[in-house]
Amino acid sequence: MFAAFQLGLQGVQAQLCDSLPQMGGQCIALYADKPIYDIPGIALCTGRELAARLQQQIQPFHPVFHGHTQVAQLLPHGDGRWRVQLQSIDGPQARWLLARTVVVTAGVGAFVPKQLRLPGLEAWLGSQVFYHPAFDDAWLEPILARQAAPRIVINGGDDAAVEAVLAAADHASLQAAQLVLMHRRDQFNAPDALLQRLAQLRASGRVEVVIGMPQAIEAAERLQGIGYVDADGADQRLACDQLWVFQGLSPKLGPLLDWNLALEKKQLQVATDSFQTSAVGIYAAGDIVSYPGKRKLILTGFYEATMAAMAAVEYLRGEKLLLEYTTTSKRLHARLGVSHPD
Amino acid sequence: MFAAFQLGLQGVQAQLCDSLPQMGGQCIALYADKPIYDIPGIALCTGRELAARLQQQIQPFHPVFHGHTQVAQLLPHGDGRWRVQLQSIDGPQARWLLARTVVVTAGVGAFVPKQLRLPGLEAWLGSQVFYHPAFDDAWLEPILARQAAPRIVINGGDDAAVEAVLAAADHASLQAAQLVLMHRRDQFNAPDALLQRLAQLRASGRVEVVIGMPQAIEAAERLQGIGYVDADGADQRLACDQLWVFQGLSPKLGPLLDWNLALEKKQLQVATDSFQTSAVGIYAAGDIVSYPGKRKLILTGFYEATMAAMAAVEYLRGEKLLLEYTTTSKRLHARLGVSHPD
Repeated sequence: MFAAFQLGLQGVQAQLCDSLPQMGGQCIALYADKPIYDIPGIALCTGRELAARLQQQIQPFHPVFHGHTQVAQLLPHGDGRWRVQLQSIDGPQARWLLARTVVVTAGVGAFVPKQLRLPGLEAWLGSQVFYHPAFDDAWLEPILARQAAPRIVINGGDDAAVEAVLAAADHASLQAAQLVLMHRRDQFNAPDALLQRLAQLRASGRVEVVIGMPQAIEAAERLQGIGYVDADGADQRLACDQLWVFQGLSPKLGPLLDWNLALEKKQLQVATDSFQTSAVGIYAAGDIVSYPGKRKLILTGFYEATMAAMAAVEYLRGEKLLLEYTTTSKRLHARLGVSHPD
Repeated sequence: MFAAFQLGLQGVQAQLCDSLPQMGGQCIALYADKPIYDIPGIALCTGRELAARLQQQIQPFHPVFHGHTQVAQLLPHGDGRWRVQLQSIDGPQARWLLARTVVVTAGVGAFVPKQLRLPGLEAWLGSQVFYHPAFDDAWLEPILARQAAPRIVINGGDDAAVEAVLAAADHASLQAAQLVLMHRRDQFNAPDALLQRLAQLRASGRVEVVIGMPQAIEAAERLQGIGYVDADGADQRLACDQLWVFQGLSPKLGPLLDWNLALEKKQLQVATDSFQTSAVGIYAAGDIVSYPGKRKLILTGFYEATMAAMAAVEYLRGEKLLLEYTTTSKRLHARLGVSHPD
């Protein structure tokens, strides 16, 4: 996000791509509600608050955000540009961007959903099976077009799973749907307010909770059911039209390892004067980057993102950047959409 | 200030030394009221606000601040420690600290008062002549002990000069003193509120304004008067017991150039993995530091200060620092004086 800010200050619009549905990376995935004390000038904030502050800060530059999307491939286009393949997290959809420069800020990896390993499951991915779906109308529309009143099994026990059940129960388009929450035990890890609402929905019969662990799928023309082991170890079967899996997120370097960029201990090697990787036009910043003396702090990421962004701008322009200051530069003020009298 | 924060987090108390009376460096000396847009997570603040935020952030570590004081000499003590000479800005007073490690964050130089070049003036420095005095009782006491009702000439035309006149006019111990504000023209560069108050004090006769430029001093046993050229170019004379000079501040590298540290274009050379200078135990950060790719931003200073502080702690401990995070570390929380349940 801060690389997008520095690029924006230099008049370059960035496209941001992240496996998470919202911007914020580790700050929202690992310590959304934990305290951060070591951001310069901010005595205390949470990870979520820091992400929100950065989102506000980059707002003047209207960066395009591709959420719930992973960069799968990064290939030279032959003319100095790069072909960037954006792959949807919960489906087979992919598309390509053509970029003159790329800043890799992959952190400890992309936070991708943990997979449910059931034989034959992949065949239904993107139509009847979804991992951590980002809940919106555009995504629901084709699902409901095929089946107006699906039986939806939501599998998981953390706050993301509980939130998905509550959102589905309240969603206008899903009033005819049957909702099943399946988890290995009758204990859910979510804030009290969410748990109370879940209890109400169970009491009213709107949501059914099934204790069990998925073992197999039943499918013919389409996915029809899930075989699972119940609390007593007995085999059971559950009808299912839609399976939404919330087994948590886990960071995976994944495709990045195949981009032919120089790595050391699974971290990108960069020149510390430019934060360029071993490939011309590809820069990197943050936890994914390694160099002598590296300290893995958020502040370090901000610095590296700034260095990478400025070097990328010099690369794009083919000339050295004349440093301007946001305190006084009319040009930077215009880009920020502000004005100050002399 | 941020180096002191990082040192504090590691349990090391810092002593801060600055030529300005308050903490904040360039942020308060050059752009106190100018907007800063490029601090990560802070969409907008002024230089003064940034300094205040940092002051709040370092508060848990109670750093000792030596204001209005310049480091004049930095000498090896022979046992690996360093002798640091602190020199008062407006007088001949000096004292020595013994430090195991020093972080030089000298910016574009120490903001020292511009000198009034009059023959023989230096002899009265610290007794009857003061540059940008930091206005407090401890400083006034010996002055008033010698002369209960001095005739004070305040020379200057900017807000610091006007503020000094207003402070003197209101000061309980200076009610018997005569106050003269001397400037080369009858126009003062200060906020309207201060100018209105000055107009009141002139109208009531509490403050006399003299238009003129100092040319010489009259002195025998003590300083007695100032010779000056008035607006018409005529030589004039003004009785004077105390001369307080506010000709503005200007950054001077000064003594730092003589500390035998490796310099390039008057900037300290550092290793980018430690931000150590050419001397063992002496680190540096901020605008005073140069290395390949350096970008002179406030953020850069924060990063470098962090790198320097952490390397200094490793030097003091003789072992690598295990990175802990303020999000979760009980030890860091204890140092910050906060507690968080698991």
